[in-house]
Amino acid sequence: MGESGDEARDLPEDTVGLLAGLTTTRAIRRYRDEPVPQDVLRDILFAATRAPSGSNRQPFRFLVLTDGQHALRARRLIGDSARTLWAAKVEHDGYHRGSGTTAGSPKSRMAEVMQAYVDHLESVPVIVLPCLVRYRSPRPTEGGSIYPACQNLLLAARALGYGGVMTGFQRLAEPELRQVLDIPDNVLIAGTITLGKPAGGHGPVRRRPLGELVFADRWEHAPDWAVDPPGAAYTAAGPPSKE
Amino acid sequence: MGESGDEARDLPEDTVGLLAGLTTTRAIRRYRDEPVPQDVLRDILFAATRAPSGSNRQPFRFLVLTDGQHALRARRLIGDSARTLWAAKVEHDGYHRGSGTTAGSPKSRMAEVMQAYVDHLESVPVIVLPCLVRYRSPRPTEGGSIYPACQNLLLAARALGYGGVMTGFQRLAEPELRQVLDIPDNVLIAGTITLGKPAGGHGPVRRRPLGELVFADRWEHAPDWAVDPPGAAYTAAGPPSKE
Repeated sequence: MGESGDEARDLPEDTVGLLAGLTTTRAIRRYRDEPVPQDVLRDILFAATRAPSGSNRQPFRFLVLTDGQHALRARRLIGDSARTLWAAKVEHDGYHRGSGTTAGSPKSRMAEVMQAYVDHLESVPVIVLPCLVRYRSPRPTEGGSIYPACQNLLLAARALGYGGVMTGFQRLAEPELRQVLDIPDNVLIAGTITLGKPAGGHGPVRRRPLGELVFADRWEHAPDWAVDPPGAAYTAAGPPSKE
Repeated sequence: MGESGDEARDLPEDTVGLLAGLTTTRAIRRYRDEPVPQDVLRDILFAATRAPSGSNRQPFRFLVLTDGQHALRARRLIGDSARTLWAAKVEHDGYHRGSGTTAGSPKSRMAEVMQAYVDHLESVPVIVLPCLVRYRSPRPTEGGSIYPACQNLLLAARALGYGGVMTGFQRLAEPELRQVLDIPDNVLIAGTITLGKPAGGHGPVRRRPLGELVFADRWEHAPDWAVDPPGAAYTAAGPPSKE
């Protein structure tokens, strides 16, 4: 593994197909306790920054937090914010009510995975803060110049045998994060991405049926071709219902 | 080609690798004059809807405009909006000044491609309006639940031999589009994606050097591993400078 960064290195050969990657990459929240090599980080970030943005302005920046002095302080801040936000969500979405009280139910399992994720957020192998440098006043569509790059980032991790997830868990810590990391006021901290080598088994991608998400010619008119391929795994939308 | 949509059909085999697709997919604005088969549309939209979203709520919807009665009206509205917006950009960004007056310069070539694109926007093979159904008041990070799916959509087009680009060219026509297409007020029209079979030659992806876009430990501190692979094609950021 070349760590010097002094000489340019080609991208590795692909082992996953493009359409396969797009349709089977899922959120990874449990990681092996091992660092992500700098070569891999370079490849993941290179793929992220090839994404499109409005007028190709590339207002996206990626702030990588591993083991530096400021990174360690930022990680603790994000961890605290995550635990507070998750505790509120457990209450609001009723994770400990209804089937959430039954061990092994999808709901209680999701709650367990999320609790373990926020409990150890400081120690995930890599945290990346995707940031948007604003050159004009905020507008609802400004995310079109940062989130395509975030998706490229997560897909590139998958391509290289890694995995991750994007959350908004930095939200409560934003003022402190700006101070610790020198992030200017005109920059939107667009999320918190965690990355690492997946640990244990992970289920399939679960999504709503295609006919609920795709319309043709008019709103809510599903075309007859909007039919999922065989083997699609379904879910209801969003967090658990409040039983 | 099965057009019935009555039976589930598997996804096709991949011919492009995941990392290769992420790093070489570029905006396609010139299309052959041929429709996109419904099988291909199904595959592209299936890949789009597998993208992640906040709490897996999947608030994204994709409104496909081909040759239906409402689609044709909407296409004309978007075309008019695009031409007005592009004319303003030509003036604002000085596309007809400086090197823009020299035939064959990058600036005048970009202006030609864009003018032809907006002049014939009504007749691109497919327009897709990516939409975000809001369940709470707008926030700057809400695009995190729609633009990853838009990027999946564009990458899936590439995987299947097609191409496209996302713009904000619907902006001036939004009130009329809501009427014609029955789009509710709580829905954000997040962009306009055009799709088709690429026509003619298309250049490489051009982006800023990695070291300008990736920081580690602190804002504006580029890590020494942020080095582009060999063969990366560079550009300055954004639209032409106002010479």
